[in-house]
Amino acid sequence: MKVKQRNWVHIIALVLALALVTTVANAAQPKYVFFFLGDGMASSQIQATEAYLTTANGGSATLAKDLLKPENRLNLSKMAVTGMQTTYDSFALMTDSASSATAFACGIKTKSGVIGMDETLARSVKSIAQLAYERGRKVGIITSVSLDHATPAAYYASVPNRGYMNNIATQLANTGYEFFGGGGLVKPAPTDNPGSDTNNDVWALLEANGYTVLKDRESILALKDSPRDKVVCINPWLQDAQAMPYDIDRINTENTNLSLAEMTEVAIADLYGRRPAKGHKWGQSRKEGFFIMVEGGKIDWACHANDAMAAIADMIDFDNAVGVAMEFLKKHPHETLIVVTGDHETGGMTIGHATTAYKAYYDRLLGQTNSFQYFGANQWTEHKTEWEDKVCANVAAPNNLESNIDMLDLMADVFGLNWADLNDYQKEKLEDAYDKSMCGSNDNHAAENTYLYGGYNPIIVTITHVLNEQASIGWTSYSHTGVPVPIFAQGREAELFAGFYDNTDIARKLAKAMDLPKLPVEK
Amino acid sequence: MKVKQRNWVHIIALVLALALVTTVANAAQPKYVFFFLGDGMASSQIQATEAYLTTANGGSATLAKDLLKPENRLNLSKMAVTGMQTTYDSFALMTDSASSATAFACGIKTKSGVIGMDETLARSVKSIAQLAYERGRKVGIITSVSLDHATPAAYYASVPNRGYMNNIATQLANTGYEFFGGGGLVKPAPTDNPGSDTNNDVWALLEANGYTVLKDRESILALKDSPRDKVVCINPWLQDAQAMPYDIDRINTENTNLSLAEMTEVAIADLYGRRPAKGHKWGQSRKEGFFIMVEGGKIDWACHANDAMAAIADMIDFDNAVGVAMEFLKKHPHETLIVVTGDHETGGMTIGHATTAYKAYYDRLLGQTNSFQYFGANQWTEHKTEWEDKVCANVAAPNNLESNIDMLDLMADVFGLNWADLNDYQKEKLEDAYDKSMCGSNDNHAAENTYLYGGYNPIIVTITHVLNEQASIGWTSYSHTGVPVPIFAQGREAELFAGFYDNTDIARKLAKAMDLPKLPVEK
Repeated sequence: MKVKQRNWVHIIALVLALALVTTVANAAQPKYVFFFLGDGMASSQIQATEAYLTTANGGSATLAKDLLKPENRLNLSKMAVTGMQTTYDSFALMTDSASSATAFACGIKTKSGVIGMDETLARSVKSIAQLAYERGRKVGIITSVSLDHATPAAYYASVPNRGYMNNIATQLANTGYEFFGGGGLVKPAPTDNPGSDTNNDVWALLEANGYTVLKDRESILALKDSPRDKVVCINPWLQDAQAMPYDIDRINTENTNLSLAEMTEVAIADLYGRRPAKGHKWGQSRKEGFFIMVEGGKIDWACHANDAMAAIADMIDFDNAVGVAMEFLKKHPHETLIVVTGDHETGGMTIGHATTAYKAYYDRLLGQTNSFQYFGANQWTEHKTEWEDKVCANVAAPNNLESNIDMLDLMADVFGLNWADLNDYQKEKLEDAYDKSMCGSNDNHAAENTYLYGGYNPIIVTITHVLNEQASIGWTSYSHTGVPVPIFAQGREAELFAGFYDNTDIARKLAKAMDLPKLPVEK
Repeated sequence: MKVKQRNWVHIIALVLALALVTTVANAAQPKYVFFFLGDGMASSQIQATEAYLTTANGGSATLAKDLLKPENRLNLSKMAVTGMQTTYDSFALMTDSASSATAFACGIKTKSGVIGMDETLARSVKSIAQLAYERGRKVGIITSVSLDHATPAAYYASVPNRGYMNNIATQLANTGYEFFGGGGLVKPAPTDNPGSDTNNDVWALLEANGYTVLKDRESILALKDSPRDKVVCINPWLQDAQAMPYDIDRINTENTNLSLAEMTEVAIADLYGRRPAKGHKWGQSRKEGFFIMVEGGKIDWACHANDAMAAIADMIDFDNAVGVAMEFLKKHPHETLIVVTGDHETGGMTIGHATTAYKAYYDRLLGQTNSFQYFGANQWTEHKTEWEDKVCANVAAPNNLESNIDMLDLMADVFGLNWADLNDYQKEKLEDAYDKSMCGSNDNHAAENTYLYGGYNPIIVTITHVLNEQASIGWTSYSHTGVPVPIFAQGREAELFAGFYDNTDIARKLAKAMDLPKLPVEK
């Protein structure tokens, strides 16, 4: 009896010891950390994309059974942990991407337009990327926009004005980070940047600092098999402001350009396959591994322009990049953390419209083949060149658009928008916008034009407005909005990201997950 | 040495035993369960309310430090657990409140308009309230709209059509539930309901079933000290469709009417203070306690009408009711679960507008003193009676509104909207709407009027549109929208509500928390 009891006690002790070991193991930091930032992505962008995917995959966006099928859901929607964040910056309900990136990267509030500095501009702070790098983690910074744009910049630069892009690029070249990938640089030349406080030749500086700059698809993809030490990967086609093309436009050029998902694949292979950082060996310390930030930057640009389909295509590419990280997590389940969020909503996008009420028609979007940007730079420019004189000789005519077969064909070919399907109000809005775009004026009040077009090409933004409202998607703004933004997390330490908190807390949580010093850390 | 080692083993065993006891205790179900449902409440409604509160409390909605102060945050924003839900019903991306209530209450998808039955209408299912009641929990059903409205109805009724309100009320009277509180009944009389399948005298049925119906503030509040067994509490003033008044209108009548928060206080005191259900004693079984459902139903109605300030005031009252439950949770921290969510977004509300871009002016809302509903039934009706003939004799005049001092004064007095602050486009929209409301026509296309007014009084909805856009709030619809809705939870078993899941999962999680049978349960 006595012996039995003692055995029982020993068994309990053994169970407890095992439990302790498990607890300690679980408390260890993740070696591989991903932060995915959908610029301009909030709940509406996610829902519109899933409703579109449901339709594109042959289902109906009006059937719960189709909408809820796993293949019609984004990777981010399937992650185990969700949270919610407030996104205000120091002086705005609607944050700017520079201040929100500073919040995520450095853990401080600042004012719109400022990167890596506080609102007084007196204090510069280190980003979690820099702190991780200093502790032996490799760092990869990926974005679909230019590498010196506000969001990526917050991970390596401190500037009082996001417009100081030569200064930002100079700081990029001095980071030592192992991987940059995405768009190009906006002001790399000494002569580019009269408003900035630096005037450096950034390409020369990158070379001097040991960086290899790759600009074609083959050499970039080759990194997957032959990792390099310090590399800047720039997509061949830079569509606008040194950014990668909208994904809706890229898919026509698949063999020459990279998707954000492919760029992420390259970064993972390159950083994971490469030899340990200087002074470190794999497995020597839990501080090794990598931190990769991936920004889907043109979701925001498409939403500024109120082009739902361009935003949705970029959402899908962004989520495919998340999927690439999820595949990595499957192979390294105990060592990987993935966090996905947006910095703010853009455009006041809604999943419903007065015109369609309780109905949704996402099949309307299937006909759009180019972004507003591509259309503006190509088909529209050609059309305007050919027709401007003829149309504007008679600008007072009430049906300049309706009588122009060439333009009606373009609307049908590029946007799947058929004149015969439009109601009288939609026709009137398109006619007004056509006159304004073609000839510079219409009969609206200036305030009405501000409301209807923002700063965008009137006819193009009206085409996407009408197309989107037909699908049941509304817009109320051309700017960022202040709605709280969801967060998704999976993997080790993912539970840190549950709850409702401020955007600056995300930096603190990431710092905690990577065992970095308490934020903020002054430079 | 040997002895010491054995002591150590014993200590470990003791610790383990304590851990086990704690685990078992934590696994027990909460005795007191609250489900708060903000009808039409999603992230935008929450954010608009917090920005308003910040301003109303003397801060600025453009300063992060003010927006993040605890006193400017809603109770629901401070809850420990957040989740997110998809809200589709069987055949719609934009759910109806009947189908979403069926999802929350019964755990099944159904089609719009159906309550407590599946989409084939062949199967009726029990709600979690009914199942909880059958297992000895007391049940309280509270709503700011009529007690037979879709959301409360799903907790006690099964009908193929939410319009069968005599049938719904009949089922209400047969529940045996201990507490109903809020608005009245829409079709209680035998002659009320030719379209329904029942024609009962519901007041007589309630009496026959042992219910006491209270209709004045004092007797309702008296329940806090003198609990009663089966009670129906109806707010004295039923403003529209047998609903409690909008809170923005109620506050002028504080001593005669009840807020939703007060009604919740009464329900808690009544259900907590009363003797145990038949055959049960307090503490006899963990199945005892209560389930209380509280609906803020007019957040939705205000958002349908695109009246932000009426929605915000009802949001505050709804959240105050959440606060009442949070106080209860503080006193019963290990026995209470609170879950708060919305059933869908309404109105396509956004936290930004093309007119204001990155600026927010919530102080604009401080001047509104009545809801669109009250204004329509009172000041507007008086104005129209007095002015209709005079204005409509000259309906073609371009400035019927601008030249009418009486109407300009009303807009300033009731909405704080000053003509001098408006831009030309806002003035034009108001003039068009005034003509339409006053004289039945304007020079817009029919489709434009559908877009601008929905089914609402043109001048009133245009006043709130203009006022809201001045504050930086946009709207795109007069219907429900399909954006995912956040969930908040606190207390025992709150962690069940973390993650991103479907609205039907909420019923299953609540059933699990209350140890109810696996859903759905057929009637």
